[in-house]
Amino acid sequence: MDKLYIIKIGGNIIDDEKKLLPFLKDFSSVDGKKILVHGGGKLATKLAEQMNIPQQVVEGRRITDAETLKIVTMVYAGYINKNIVAKLQMNNCNAIGLCGADGDAILAHKRKHPVMDYGFVGDVDGINSDLIGSLLDKNLTPVFAPITHDQQGQLLNTNADTVAQELAKGLSNNYEVQLIYSFEKSGVLLDTNDDATVIASINPASYKKLKSKEKIFAGMIPKLDNAFAALNSGVKKVIIGKAENLKDLIAGTSGTTITNE
Amino acid sequence: MDKLYIIKIGGNIIDDEKKLLPFLKDFSSVDGKKILVHGGGKLATKLAEQMNIPQQVVEGRRITDAETLKIVTMVYAGYINKNIVAKLQMNNCNAIGLCGADGDAILAHKRKHPVMDYGFVGDVDGINSDLIGSLLDKNLTPVFAPITHDQQGQLLNTNADTVAQELAKGLSNNYEVQLIYSFEKSGVLLDTNDDATVIASINPASYKKLKSKEKIFAGMIPKLDNAFAALNSGVKKVIIGKAENLKDLIAGTSGTTITNE
Repeated sequence: MDKLYIIKIGGNIIDDEKKLLPFLKDFSSVDGKKILVHGGGKLATKLAEQMNIPQQVVEGRRITDAETLKIVTMVYAGYINKNIVAKLQMNNCNAIGLCGADGDAILAHKRKHPVMDYGFVGDVDGINSDLIGSLLDKNLTPVFAPITHDQQGQLLNTNADTVAQELAKGLSNNYEVQLIYSFEKSGVLLDTNDDATVIASINPASYKKLKSKEKIFAGMIPKLDNAFAALNSGVKKVIIGKAENLKDLIAGTSGTTITNE
Repeated sequence: MDKLYIIKIGGNIIDDEKKLLPFLKDFSSVDGKKILVHGGGKLATKLAEQMNIPQQVVEGRRITDAETLKIVTMVYAGYINKNIVAKLQMNNCNAIGLCGADGDAILAHKRKHPVMDYGFVGDVDGINSDLIGSLLDKNLTPVFAPITHDQQGQLLNTNADTVAQELAKGLSNNYEVQLIYSFEKSGVLLDTNDDATVIASINPASYKKLKSKEKIFAGMIPKLDNAFAALNSGVKKVIIGKAENLKDLIAGTSGTTITNE
């Protein structure tokens, strides 16, 4: 099976062109098949402020109302996605920007919740591995914005980590998938304030120990649970680390590698 | 050769959901290979107003400064493009939304002019017929937003009529292309105020006569010159007519058909 790198970049990179451009250069130089998944960063919030559209927050959670959906569609699938694609093209990476509606790439449904109405938020049902495989076969590099659809004409705002994970799971029948979450920290840290305390590797046994000793920052637990879920669905390896170190993350010399072994 | 319909919709349809949805339903039902090219309508201007970004106009021409480019990228390639794709998917048309940077689909350069600086406006150099052909072969329907790139990382605002025309020319080696410009009028009219005065067909000889008798509205002349240029580059047929009549335009029972014969 061919190797496939699915790389998610977080908002802090997108918000900072001085970091984004070197990242995209490094990404372009990754040999072989690859997919980029990007979040939105602060640009959507900034645009909402500029347009005087209040962000609805209920119990600490952002609600995607119709106006917010319009903004994230513009910012994520328009501005950010197309600028990333243009910069990758400049680096001779034949990128193609997509959202989940394009080619029916990612199918989702509006989140159902017994109490909360999250608005136009999508939970992913599955991905179109035929389409994505055929693009990869043409040496195209899909770049996904975290917007999905429900096949009924409705676009849905979707968590970018989830999009990356679902792509990794859905493509692991056909590829040896490495899922890389790149963000602002150097990996999973023993001390969240000390970037030098990266845990080089985590497997189910060590994860159990770390959790029982409360050595892992609470915010990291959902990310790690998702990583193990991905591994259990056939993903070969999950790596969490700093976007600036992308080459080393791929070489396995930086970040935290999560495996089932 | 397979038939290929390249259909451009104008802004008045995009601005009016009551017209857009039936149009997209009709478009979905067009048999065989097809491409949709959309303009922007008034949404970009509206967003610029909402964001308090003044539109630069020099000698009656809009200038695409950096802020305006950002807005058109968001509106055309994000909001409009992805909503059209989602609605086509709803109608079982496997649409894939693209701008010119995606897969290096449309290559352009920043317009050079001896006096005027139009800003980030693109003039098209060529299209990637391999990429577009491979998508069509997968029964995908490309939906193009009128944003191109220069392969140097710069997105460029590009006239949607031109995008449609360049696609038609570039694909006519491999397909029997019919280029359809759908807009608010019923076709090329003898009396611009009377929609019943559609000229059913125009060829080079009749065009010459119409022009010499000043029977053609001045605003129509560039469109017709472009139509003949497309025909001279291998496009089979150009049809101009009302978007609401799409099925009849394709059947040849409505609008103005322009041919070289």
